[in-house]
Amino acid sequence: MRILGIDPGLQTTGFGLIDVDGHRLSYVASGTIRTTALALGDLPGRLKVLFDGISEVAARYEPDVATVEIVFVNVNPQSTLLLGQARGAAITALVASNLPVAEYTALQMKKAVVGHGRAAKTQVQEMVRRLLQLPGLPGTDAADALGMAITHAHAGSAMARLGEAATLQRRQHAMYKGGRSY
Amino acid sequence: MRILGIDPGLQTTGFGLIDVDGHRLSYVASGTIRTTALALGDLPGRLKVLFDGISEVAARYEPDVATVEIVFVNVNPQSTLLLGQARGAAITALVASNLPVAEYTALQMKKAVVGHGRAAKTQVQEMVRRLLQLPGLPGTDAADALGMAITHAHAGSAMARLGEAATLQRRQHAMYKGGRSY
Repeated sequence: MRILGIDPGLQTTGFGLIDVDGHRLSYVASGTIRTTALALGDLPGRLKVLFDGISEVAARYEPDVATVEIVFVNVNPQSTLLLGQARGAAITALVASNLPVAEYTALQMKKAVVGHGRAAKTQVQEMVRRLLQLPGLPGTDAADALGMAITHAHAGSAMARLGEAATLQRRQHAMYKGGRSY
Repeated sequence: MRILGIDPGLQTTGFGLIDVDGHRLSYVASGTIRTTALALGDLPGRLKVLFDGISEVAARYEPDVATVEIVFVNVNPQSTLLLGQARGAAITALVASNLPVAEYTALQMKKAVVGHGRAAKTQVQEMVRRLLQLPGLPGTDAADALGMAITHAHAGSAMARLGEAATLQRRQHAMYKGGRSY
């Protein structure tokens, strides 16, 4: 199974792909999509760059499932609104590519990757490097995205062990139920 | 010129299309896209309904330009985040359909449609009905969306009178600059 992880942001969105074969995880690709404002106030233009970028990643690497980090409200409400719009564009690109989407918090990701929820960014980078046997540290956005993919791999195998999820669809459904409610 | 107006929301998104021929405005179509949660927490599924709905409207009515209401932060930060994600999905559907997108606030819309910014919802509905010679009052979401389209028609003709905008592209650009900055 190939998993695409996304760490959404308006300026920089990280993506990372891994293959899962039983307990074996292998690195496929990772990177960042940057949406620098071409003109002042050009939010639609930036969302298009984000949508096109994620659509291209999905078309090129053909993942089976995607995971997106659940974002939280910012101290600055205007930033919350902007981050929400970026996350909306990212999820839209995934569902428009017919990918099932699972959602995890950064806390769940850190627990799955590092072992505890208070891990620093550098610890996530280091554990992602070790788990995927990368030659060097991935960037922070790519590391978070790869961490999301690893989190889904762990959640998937945990559920498989419990025999709770016979099909991808049912597993997805269970994740929605177990995740944040809207 | 055919203008598509969008009033975005996570639960209900209004859309309205008008044709503009000089000073003459004529009604084309309007309606709402409802994204009832199919499963608890299924935000990706709801964003897909919104994206597919707007994409279908764009494909069916072939507008030349779209306008989307600029939303503001809510008292509840979680609602702000949800509204942001819905607006992000709506704008993404428009730019993915290769439509230029202009943005106006509800205040600008009320000034353009009713004549002052403190107009009530019912006044917007009534003025939209009169301006487009509709047989009855449109629903509030559809009225706001038609109001956004009318606002763009007024802004466009005002700019044309000033001779400031020779092409749609330049007009769009000017609107971004005049609108909210991100």
